[in-house]
Amino acid sequence: MTSIGLLGIAGSLRKASTNRGLLRAARANLPDNAGLEIADLADIPFYNQDLAEKPASVIRVLAQIGAADALVLASAEYNYSLAPALKNILDWASREPDNALLAGKPAAILSAGGGMGASRAQYHLRQICVFLDLRPLNKPEVFANAFAGGFDVDGNLIDEKITGLVGESMRALVAAVAARR
Amino acid sequence: MTSIGLLGIAGSLRKASTNRGLLRAARANLPDNAGLEIADLADIPFYNQDLAEKPASVIRVLAQIGAADALVLASAEYNYSLAPALKNILDWASREPDNALLAGKPAAILSAGGGMGASRAQYHLRQICVFLDLRPLNKPEVFANAFAGGFDVDGNLIDEKITGLVGESMRALVAAVAARR
Amino acid sequence: MTSIGLLGIAGSLRKASTNRGLLRAARANLPDNAGLEIADLADIPFYNQDLAEKPASVIRVLAQIGAADALVLASAEYNYSLAPALKNILDWASREPDNALLAGKPAAILSAGGGMGASRAQYHLRQICVFLDLRPLNKPEVFANAFAGGFDVDGNLIDEKITGLVGESMRALVAAVAARR
Amino acid sequence: MTSIGLLGIAGSLRKASTNRGLLRAARANLPDNAGLEIADLADIPFYNQDLAEKPASVIRVLAQIGAADALVLASAEYNYSLAPALKNILDWASREPDNALLAGKPAAILSAGGGMGASRAQYHLRQICVFLDLRPLNKPEVFANAFAGGFDVDGNLIDEKITGLVGESMRALVAAVAARR
Repeated sequence: MTSIGLLGIAGSLRKASTNRGLLRAARANLPDNAGLEIADLADIPFYNQDLAEKPASVIRVLAQIGAADALVLASAEYNYSLAPALKNILDWASREPDNALLAGKPAAILSAGGGMGASRAQYHLRQICVFLDLRPLNKPEVFANAFAGGFDVDGNLIDEKITGLVGESMRALVAAVAARR
Repeated sequence: MTSIGLLGIAGSLRKASTNRGLLRAARANLPDNAGLEIADLADIPFYNQDLAEKPASVIRVLAQIGAADALVLASAEYNYSLAPALKNILDWASREPDNALLAGKPAAILSAGGGMGASRAQYHLRQICVFLDLRPLNKPEVFANAFAGGFDVDGNLIDEKITGLVGESMRALVAAVAARR
Repeated sequence: MTSIGLLGIAGSLRKASTNRGLLRAARANLPDNAGLEIADLADIPFYNQDLAEKPASVIRVLAQIGAADALVLASAEYNYSLAPALKNILDWASREPDNALLAGKPAAILSAGGGMGASRAQYHLRQICVFLDLRPLNKPEVFANAFAGGFDVDGNLIDEKITGLVGESMRALVAAVAARR
Repeated sequence: MTSIGLLGIAGSLRKASTNRGLLRAARANLPDNAGLEIADLADIPFYNQDLAEKPASVIRVLAQIGAADALVLASAEYNYSLAPALKNILDWASREPDNALLAGKPAAILSAGGGMGASRAQYHLRQICVFLDLRPLNKPEVFANAFAGGFDVDGNLIDEKITGLVGESMRALVAAVAARR
């Protein structure tokens, strides 16, 4: 059995982020042959073409992205679009020669937000994936309401139905990695 | 004649940014009764709900936004969506009580980018404006090709047709401010 | 007091359409100085540039659009975007010289649909409004769940909260017409 | 060598449609093991849930969609979004039990339009594909300018660069079908 490595990236930086909670739920609901690391975006600066060298924090996360078989993107929604921290690390990753870190990689998109579960941000993210040549799953779409009792105060997912969807998404993602090999 | 104050905000942080060049072109092609400041985003950190206090750099730009009669948003496109630095300052601005800095303000959207002039990012920005209750002009849309000789090496706009459109946009923006008073 | 005339257009053609129900709710919750007609799209053919003459059914609805001070668009969602019947009449209307039927007109967008209230279709419609130079209200956004008891079997809106939002939307629309005069 | 069957669907109904021209160019630039039929949408009525039976014209095209290994969607852009005729046949196709006609099928998206090659409509179409569970290629994106000499008066594609891209797209589409088997 070959091991499959996933990298989770969340857009929200706050400690009790429900979107990071979705990543922990994903990690707890993986198929046996898969593992999931969670990227730390705390020290990633804004991408700026003038920067002569990549900071160490960026190099570290780009290495994780490159090593991953697939990405799990937890896309917080701010003002009907992406959280800048998620967009920014994708922008950094997109600058590698031949798009080597991203091209053709399967991705699962999850999100927690208001009554519509951050869906508006998800469709923006999908348009971004066209250029990045990421291959987001169509189904299941995972939209979690962050304000209706589905998460505890630390941002942990406690809603059973959403937990089931997260697990279904992880199985579909691992299957997409296997199909690509 | 009442004076009208505009604030220009560009998404790209690099020195020779063509999007900042569009803002300079806007400033050089204003109606007589208007002035335009250009915001400096260099030290603005990512929005993070956990931050106890707003940094001085954020306070300064939010004051500029609050004082402006209208915004000129120069929306660089990275990977088919907004540059995170522009999205991020709008996220900061959106957190004021009653959306006092933004609600109802007219906005002009300009962009420089690849062959499609960063149009994909503009439509994402327009969706963001719905939530922010900004009122972007429908016409003219200003899309500048950044790679076809329309800008000099310092990012200054030298294309006459686009310069004309930028001027037309500024006149429409000032008229929208006047109509709102 | 000047009278203000609104035209309601719904995307769904079926008899018990909940989106047409939203238009009836709008008509029942208008400010005193406004009236609302509902367009009949039953016989409108697909727009086709080869057609030598406009059919009578099209001429009739275009006259209603031209006479209206503002539009109320009830945007059913099919497969994450607009119902073709709504898009099609807007396409017909857009072909008049100088965009005379639509340019600068205020519009309210309402929708009934699945759990997200057809929100995905609304954002596509807003992008269409940019080209058409329609001026959709930013607030309130009206998203009605069509499958949770908010409508009766004939498609009449019976949910009080949504009814309140529809009324608020009509007041904002009439105010936008007044501000434009 | 297994044969691969593609179905081309164009949004524009007029005789000299450049989008139908793109489909003919696709048919003329297929890999040896593939064939492409072009759907005729002339008599397809608007989808309406009240219709008791599917018209013969609809049954015929749905059978073609069901038989196809992949779809080639030529997405004319009207007013910054899809042509209703293309959206409408996809809506009809989506109503089959278990989404049997569409689920998981690869798709190539081509378009001819104004200066931006109908790109705005393509991104709306991609959002629709999420719900339909179609799998559109990320690359190459094919955007043809319909008004710059790239087509003859009958709508035939005569631009060499775009013809090359269309061929590249067809090779990628056939490869996606093969990978799925």
